[in-house]
Amino acid sequence: MVQAIDNKTALSEKIYVETQNFPIPEFTLENGETLYEVNIAYETYGNLNASRSNAILILHAFSGDAHAAFYHQGDTRPGWWDRMIGPGKAFDTDRYFIICSNVLGGCAGSTGPSSINPRTGKRYALEFPQITIKDMVNAQKLLIDHLGIDKLYSIAGGSMGGMQALQWLVSYPERVRSAIPIATTARHSPQQIAFNEVGRQAIMADPNWNYGNYYDGEIPRAGLAVARMIGHITYMSEKSMAEKFGRRTKAEEGKPRFHPDFEVENYLRSRGDNFVRRFDANSYLYISKAMDLFDVSEGRPLSEKFYGLQAKLLVLSYKSDWLYPAHQSLEIVSACKIAGVPVTYVDIEAHYGHDSFLVETEIQSQLVKNFLARVGD
Amino acid sequence: MVQAIDNKTALSEKIYVETQNFPIPEFTLENGETLYEVNIAYETYGNLNASRSNAILILHAFSGDAHAAFYHQGDTRPGWWDRMIGPGKAFDTDRYFIICSNVLGGCAGSTGPSSINPRTGKRYALEFPQITIKDMVNAQKLLIDHLGIDKLYSIAGGSMGGMQALQWLVSYPERVRSAIPIATTARHSPQQIAFNEVGRQAIMADPNWNYGNYYDGEIPRAGLAVARMIGHITYMSEKSMAEKFGRRTKAEEGKPRFHPDFEVENYLRSRGDNFVRRFDANSYLYISKAMDLFDVSEGRPLSEKFYGLQAKLLVLSYKSDWLYPAHQSLEIVSACKIAGVPVTYVDIEAHYGHDSFLVETEIQSQLVKNFLARVGD
Repeated sequence: MVQAIDNKTALSEKIYVETQNFPIPEFTLENGETLYEVNIAYETYGNLNASRSNAILILHAFSGDAHAAFYHQGDTRPGWWDRMIGPGKAFDTDRYFIICSNVLGGCAGSTGPSSINPRTGKRYALEFPQITIKDMVNAQKLLIDHLGIDKLYSIAGGSMGGMQALQWLVSYPERVRSAIPIATTARHSPQQIAFNEVGRQAIMADPNWNYGNYYDGEIPRAGLAVARMIGHITYMSEKSMAEKFGRRTKAEEGKPRFHPDFEVENYLRSRGDNFVRRFDANSYLYISKAMDLFDVSEGRPLSEKFYGLQAKLLVLSYKSDWLYPAHQSLEIVSACKIAGVPVTYVDIEAHYGHDSFLVETEIQSQLVKNFLARVGD
Repeated sequence: MVQAIDNKTALSEKIYVETQNFPIPEFTLENGETLYEVNIAYETYGNLNASRSNAILILHAFSGDAHAAFYHQGDTRPGWWDRMIGPGKAFDTDRYFIICSNVLGGCAGSTGPSSINPRTGKRYALEFPQITIKDMVNAQKLLIDHLGIDKLYSIAGGSMGGMQALQWLVSYPERVRSAIPIATTARHSPQQIAFNEVGRQAIMADPNWNYGNYYDGEIPRAGLAVARMIGHITYMSEKSMAEKFGRRTKAEEGKPRFHPDFEVENYLRSRGDNFVRRFDANSYLYISKAMDLFDVSEGRPLSEKFYGLQAKLLVLSYKSDWLYPAHQSLEIVSACKIAGVPVTYVDIEAHYGHDSFLVETEIQSQLVKNFLARVGD
């Protein structure tokens, strides 16, 4: 009886974590520029084993951060991939040592355009150099060195996280035993660039953006909210929006013109408003541009980059994801096959669109579990 | 020899047209409000026959106007559907009398939010009432009355033009012998509403919008351009963008940060800038909202609205159109079949996306020709 109560307590008990900081005194970028006193914010979950062989690096998507799982003090919701990371979950913290860091250029602890430039004592704003996905990965590699990990058991991430996973395979093939790129691409299509560009235009059209110099005044709230709204439409599917909202209206007498009529309008506005509170507009510009500039194969066939790779891959896409359609994942799969790299691919039946990898994680969990169990074979 | 030269001259000769005005002294809207001294701008091509039985009403899409074919003095490009309308073309001006009017709420000659309110002597701006697709159709019906046409040989339009065609069938079934709704829907999905809403948000986020009162100052150029850019992405297909732009970049030394890197970015910006010169931001708000509010079946099965209809339908969709996907056209087709209304449906193989009905018109022309030839049977 007492035990039963204890179990229940244990199940509902929140596990708390804190973000840590990894300082890099001097960091040279892909373009040759150097950043000084760089910080990389990161979290870890679970324990590194004695042979330091059970570490998995989680790579976050565009608007993610280092807080992938569990709770911070005061959190009402856990980290962004808590469905996937934890005791007994796909990334099982009883077995693996999980690491997640905020990307370089970000605004959740890692150095980015909103950080103080130590050379001037002022915020970088647009003085921040254009970082790339490769730069993000190079910073993560220094963190992995710092943690004393010679070889990662796996690396995994969706969307921009998947891009980083692909870049890891190409930049540091000897440091990775396996990789799980999800809902991602080897390079953005013009349509993907176009959606990002419109988001950037929305931010830069806001007079409060002020060429990036808004840190001492009003932030470009309206522009950033519009950018996020565009993003949200592309992260969902037509079907999931239809199921979630239909054409339900919110009746309101005497409301001003062009206030929301439909629930979907209210939803978008509230998501836009929430985002503004937590995300830096300049980080939006830099990170979205890094995604657009990314081309892991550098204009060559991707298979050329994969020859000799010892890692195993699990590639996942989602049938309802129209932003990162399956053919982009299939290109990665084909490149693996041409290069003789072992690869498992599943186009998962889920209706939520691109965000499926964040919210519809049941099948994904099973596939990741099965895959991770076989990495050691 | 002389004849050959004459033929060549005739072929290359531009046919010039002028926009005409149809005044409506008093016009009562669906919501009971009344507009005074309304104007409807329209054009006609070809000649009305003695029995007044050869008139076809063309219905324009969101950003279209009355100028569907031929040239205005000074035009370098003809009207928006010149590929479809003219001697020997699908809407053959040697056989049919073609009419096209600018919608109520528009900004190309017809009364809209940028018009002077005769009661105040000032521009309506947001004092303009929220017009609907039904209001647009009611105004067109008065124009058809005015032109002395009892029964239209056909009505045709794509996108919002198709919505008006559906509304005509339901509002004035006895006035229409046939209808050609193209790349359209009986009602907007939440995704379609969402894209429109983000466009509206972009306009309203621009401080120059000033709650609609910008006619004496700066127009909300930046916001309207962003709205149009969003639209443009949705009007094209992933494939057509890939073919048109690829990942080609425009190399420019020393360009400021976040200026366009990719051709697709330049394209979107230039289309946004062009649009701003010809379209009124408040009309954007009112017309896009009219589309979102449109539901031709008023929450009931569409077939109920089609029972007893004597018209024939040609329904067309485009395989690469992801904004108005085929299943929305198929709903119209099903409703016709349930109601016993003769319908022909083709999902056309074209790669240009939603804009195919404007630019990839070869198959569409043949289908329209065949259909119009059989309307009289």
